[in-house]
Amino acid sequence: MKIIEGNVTTPAGFLASGVVANIRKQGRKDVGLIYSPQLCSAAGVFTVNVVHADSVDTDRRHLADGHAQAIIVNSGIANACNGEAGPKSNRASSEKVAAALGIAPENVLVASTGVIGVPLPPDKMAAGIDEAVKALSPEGGHDVSLAILTTDTVHKEAAIEIELSGKKATLGAVAKGSGMIHPNMATMLGFITTDAAISPACLQATLSAAVKGSFNMVSVDRDTSTNDSVLVLANGAAGNPEITDTASADYAVFAEALDALCVILAKKIARDGEGATHLIQVTVDHAASLTDARTIARSISASNLVKAAVFGRDANWGRILCAAGYAGVPFDPSLADVYIGDVMTAKNGMGLAFDEEAAARVLAEDTVDIRVDLKAGDVSAVAWGCDLTYDYVKINGDYRT
Amino acid sequence: MKIIEGNVTTPAGFLASGVVANIRKQGRKDVGLIYSPQLCSAAGVFTVNVVHADSVDTDRRHLADGHAQAIIVNSGIANACNGEAGPKSNRASSEKVAAALGIAPENVLVASTGVIGVPLPPDKMAAGIDEAVKALSPEGGHDVSLAILTTDTVHKEAAIEIELSGKKATLGAVAKGSGMIHPNMATMLGFITTDAAISPACLQATLSAAVKGSFNMVSVDRDTSTNDSVLVLANGAAGNPEITDTASADYAVFAEALDALCVILAKKIARDGEGATHLIQVTVDHAASLTDARTIARSISASNLVKAAVFGRDANWGRILCAAGYAGVPFDPSLADVYIGDVMTAKNGMGLAFDEEAAARVLAEDTVDIRVDLKAGDVSAVAWGCDLTYDYVKINGDYRT
Repeated sequence: MKIIEGNVTTPAGFLASGVVANIRKQGRKDVGLIYSPQLCSAAGVFTVNVVHADSVDTDRRHLADGHAQAIIVNSGIANACNGEAGPKSNRASSEKVAAALGIAPENVLVASTGVIGVPLPPDKMAAGIDEAVKALSPEGGHDVSLAILTTDTVHKEAAIEIELSGKKATLGAVAKGSGMIHPNMATMLGFITTDAAISPACLQATLSAAVKGSFNMVSVDRDTSTNDSVLVLANGAAGNPEITDTASADYAVFAEALDALCVILAKKIARDGEGATHLIQVTVDHAASLTDARTIARSISASNLVKAAVFGRDANWGRILCAAGYAGVPFDPSLADVYIGDVMTAKNGMGLAFDEEAAARVLAEDTVDIRVDLKAGDVSAVAWGCDLTYDYVKINGDYRT
Repeated sequence: MKIIEGNVTTPAGFLASGVVANIRKQGRKDVGLIYSPQLCSAAGVFTVNVVHADSVDTDRRHLADGHAQAIIVNSGIANACNGEAGPKSNRASSEKVAAALGIAPENVLVASTGVIGVPLPPDKMAAGIDEAVKALSPEGGHDVSLAILTTDTVHKEAAIEIELSGKKATLGAVAKGSGMIHPNMATMLGFITTDAAISPACLQATLSAAVKGSFNMVSVDRDTSTNDSVLVLANGAAGNPEITDTASADYAVFAEALDALCVILAKKIARDGEGATHLIQVTVDHAASLTDARTIARSISASNLVKAAVFGRDANWGRILCAAGYAGVPFDPSLADVYIGDVMTAKNGMGLAFDEEAAARVLAEDTVDIRVDLKAGDVSAVAWGCDLTYDYVKINGDYRT
């Protein structure tokens, strides 16, 4: 497995584009298209929010047969909570993309991100699709990474090279996410392409597993969005024997790469959390089970008080242990050690007279590592978040207006 | 039932004091004592955090027989996560208070609030107890309301008069709470006294019920503290026939008053949330069950994005509906109406072209009312929170140092 520079057009046989359609703001790329002329195995993971955009329902339907070959996405307007206008708009977009590319509408997936409750202007979206189809190119992956951004401050892309039964295969991805991010499902928008040949069932299995340890371990603000979707397309252009067995060696190689790709993107999203000045990486070691480890790690990484303490560079380990304690998982606090970077701040549930200056140095780093050792078992998990800053409040105090 | 000015020394037969012991900061009242010379029925509700202060364990033990007659409390240091120093300190405090008052140590309840993981200085605490005993007075309730504050900006007290079988009885209370507040249990410190005669079992039953609709419906920051405790002492000085039956008319009168008292304090705590500029009151109407209504109301009131929108006076109803959607309760979003004050912003899950200026006026008020009508049943619930502001971040970026 080799991490390389790249994005969704790095794997063979994919085209993409990102264009300006002036959906909500003027002059920024806001419509993206990803396309494989070859029909793909396809899979998706979606928000569990009861209140969700129609794109989630449309995509579930379009993925029912395990195949797709295009993703049309817009930013600026989430196309959620618009009643019948939502499905109507998604139907129109799927059909328009399908007609332009000569494919079936059910093989087009849709995604949106932005403000809730504002209808997607049909004319602008139609014009955007026309432009996006015209602009499709094997170098268009970067543009799609730009077209999906909202309050994000940086675009997010990644790629990984692997070998499957002697054939080189590549996975590429773009993602967006900055606010309204909390692990209770897929989280944010993530689009992954690969030229590996893999069956729809195997693709869905590996995506569902990868999301649990990556996107679902990220929290920016504990707000689970209406539109979160991670979609993956696998076109088989690498020429490897199709992966059809989750117990096979190639499946393991592919799954490892997909896990790594999702973790890279998840960390990028956490680091680009609205207003963030630090990436917070929380490791829980020696938990009794993976669920325990993940639940406690997420509770710490999502705590407003921990996040504010990191912003203030305050080695307030008591808040860390407190957030572990209210995660809803039983453990013995009198065994727990708390580390901030390599500084042990509490041992067996009790504060130590630690080196405050060393802790302050850790808290000045771009990535702040927090670790809790529960001494209860042999399972670890990692969660990511970001600090809570004045800018988070500023950004979210006047997002809509 | 009559709401009156008052606090824990308003009911007959209670003495209290609040003194300066320089526990963590100099020159502010930080040790409080509440005392009834007559033995009381007593009850308590405590944090469910796995990581909790020894005071919680001590009080559970001391409440096992249903009786107590004194509460000793300090602010500044939470006396949590200190290993053996915690129980040792609480034992010393109980014994010292008991010896000074000539009562049994098991009839003394203890409470602490402040920074976690710092031991309570024994000498200062002992000196504080001496002072507090000396200062006990039938007018001392206000001083105890001051002695329990940490980042609170205002003291919190309330009292209610009722009639029980023809006898006047009074309930009085003080509370503190500003940060590390999230409903998963009792929440914060609250001390309630009453001269009503009521059995320990009835007192515990009514307290447990009252907390569910009041303190447990408040969130400032979703962080469930290590020390949260609500304690109630009932000394019977009112001379009413002892309430011993939860089905009796007097029980109903008492329970209504205790509910109201707890709601008054809960709202004071939410309004005084760290950095808050608004009290947010979220009502969920026509839910299918009380659990559904409460869960959804709390999800909305605790949402960082909703809180930031209120701070920014942004009528962002999409975030309100979104927060309802991720509460974990199934409902039909296409039936839900969302109101900001009296302005209907969404109907049947869809945004309306509402009067933005009218909404802005609502968002300028000290109390911002948010209401979601689910049209799913006939049950309502109310939750309270506060806006998320720059000052919340500031206060919590450097609380410890």
